[in-house]
Amino acid sequence: MQDKTSETLLPGVERLMSELTTFSNGEASRAASDHLESGGKRVRARLALNASTSLGLSPIKSIAIAAACELIHNASLIHDDIHDKSETRRGKAATWTRFGSGTAICAGDLLISAAYAAIARTHSTSMHQLLTQTHQRVAEVISGQCEDLLAQSNDSLSLDLYETIAKSKSAPLLALPVELALIEAGHQQASEQVGYAADAFALAYQIADDIEDISNDIIQGQPNIISVLGGQDASSSQGEQARQIAVENYRLAARLADQLPRGSGSLLSAYARKGLATILPVGEAA
Amino acid sequence: MQDKTSETLLPGVERLMSELTTFSNGEASRAASDHLESGGKRVRARLALNASTSLGLSPIKSIAIAAACELIHNASLIHDDIHDKSETRRGKAATWTRFGSGTAICAGDLLISAAYAAIARTHSTSMHQLLTQTHQRVAEVISGQCEDLLAQSNDSLSLDLYETIAKSKSAPLLALPVELALIEAGHQQASEQVGYAADAFALAYQIADDIEDISNDIIQGQPNIISVLGGQDASSSQGEQARQIAVENYRLAARLADQLPRGSGSLLSAYARKGLATILPVGEAA
Repeated sequence: MQDKTSETLLPGVERLMSELTTFSNGEASRAASDHLESGGKRVRARLALNASTSLGLSPIKSIAIAAACELIHNASLIHDDIHDKSETRRGKAATWTRFGSGTAICAGDLLISAAYAAIARTHSTSMHQLLTQTHQRVAEVISGQCEDLLAQSNDSLSLDLYETIAKSKSAPLLALPVELALIEAGHQQASEQVGYAADAFALAYQIADDIEDISNDIIQGQPNIISVLGGQDASSSQGEQARQIAVENYRLAARLADQLPRGSGSLLSAYARKGLATILPVGEAA
Repeated sequence: MQDKTSETLLPGVERLMSELTTFSNGEASRAASDHLESGGKRVRARLALNASTSLGLSPIKSIAIAAACELIHNASLIHDDIHDKSETRRGKAATWTRFGSGTAICAGDLLISAAYAAIARTHSTSMHQLLTQTHQRVAEVISGQCEDLLAQSNDSLSLDLYETIAKSKSAPLLALPVELALIEAGHQQASEQVGYAADAFALAYQIADDIEDISNDIIQGQPNIISVLGGQDASSSQGEQARQIAVENYRLAARLADQLPRGSGSLLSAYARKGLATILPVGEAA
């Protein structure tokens, strides 16, 4: 799904993330490295590399943008696992269970700070905009995480609030990689369109996940789109309604991403079409 | 102690900190505002404003640098209180006790990110260096906090490790305000001298604090310079030895700060001389 040029830049992203988090020794660095080395699909780095190379940015700038987005995402995972008391991540013990929550908080802080040091590596003349947009998206993700924390203790979640939370938890950091590449390439205006594609993708993805997890979520009292709609299982009419919302949003995400300049949204579009294929009934055309 | 010009810029620093942390509504913003409004001496903002105005930087740049340093410092306070389970801060309930530790983690994250958005407001042509230096100092503070967490469970702390921790916990964020002003004013080389002054100041300050707190620290099993030296109270020979180390380091800090270009270290020097006066026996000259 990823083009070859940007695929070859991924090791550079890993090296930069490691460089920016390990120069000061100590427990926080060890915890951060340990988390980064635990894998992950690097979706945000891939989105950034795909957009950057499509737009003709240099490898150094492309890697810097990709590392920044991936560092912020990983910081959010480390901190979210503490909030949510999730004991595993990527099939391994979560950072806070291995290093203690004090060190895990420090490790996440280090990754947030390192993300901005990565942006410095673009040596961009649009640095002010890159930094401002990054902070905007970070603030949105933080706001989403806090609303999610509150929603977990809310038995009567409205569909509106469900959608707001689903979007704000993930869309900002899915939009950011493409936005930074567009800003750096001088397409500031197009960058304002990315958020709509990312919103639609994030919502569809969350719903698809909920449909898979409905039984577990009911047992654990977690918010789930099917319960929000008043249903209990995926085969109910509410399950079908949820699936339809996901289908529409995956389609919208792909269409909007395809409209971005010079193929800069092509990977986001490909992810949306892949998501769509997984939730369409066999035989129905994407 | 603060000159008039830089004193008049402090309200601008408060406004910028508030602007960068409240544009996305939500619990994290509320917790961050609540913490920022709880007061504090704004030592780091004052150091930045003093250095910036001494060096002839514009009010916008001076405020941006001051806000960045103060935001990082406040993030560290919110997160440290969670690590250390400290229930009060500035005479009020600590953020995590009022908003929960999940929201408090989010609030600290928001302040770290906002600090970099503040740096963007300098619109500096040296942005790369400003960002890189900030990340360097943030990484050091994080490393100091982690070492401090480990030291609290270490009964036989060496004097060397005590000094390393005392310096790395506070010196980086005392140095940063002056360093950023010097970098922005084109005195990159002088900025490398600031760290030594801040190290000496931070060590002296921690020792003076320890001398005050020795009885409490012994009861609570907290690391204290007098216990590290093998003593039990401030009037012991170890207490006197501790006082001597503080005196020497305050003097060193003042001397080094006075050597910085165009009075950019004058407030740091004044803080050191003020500290010195509080621990010198009556009648002994500073």
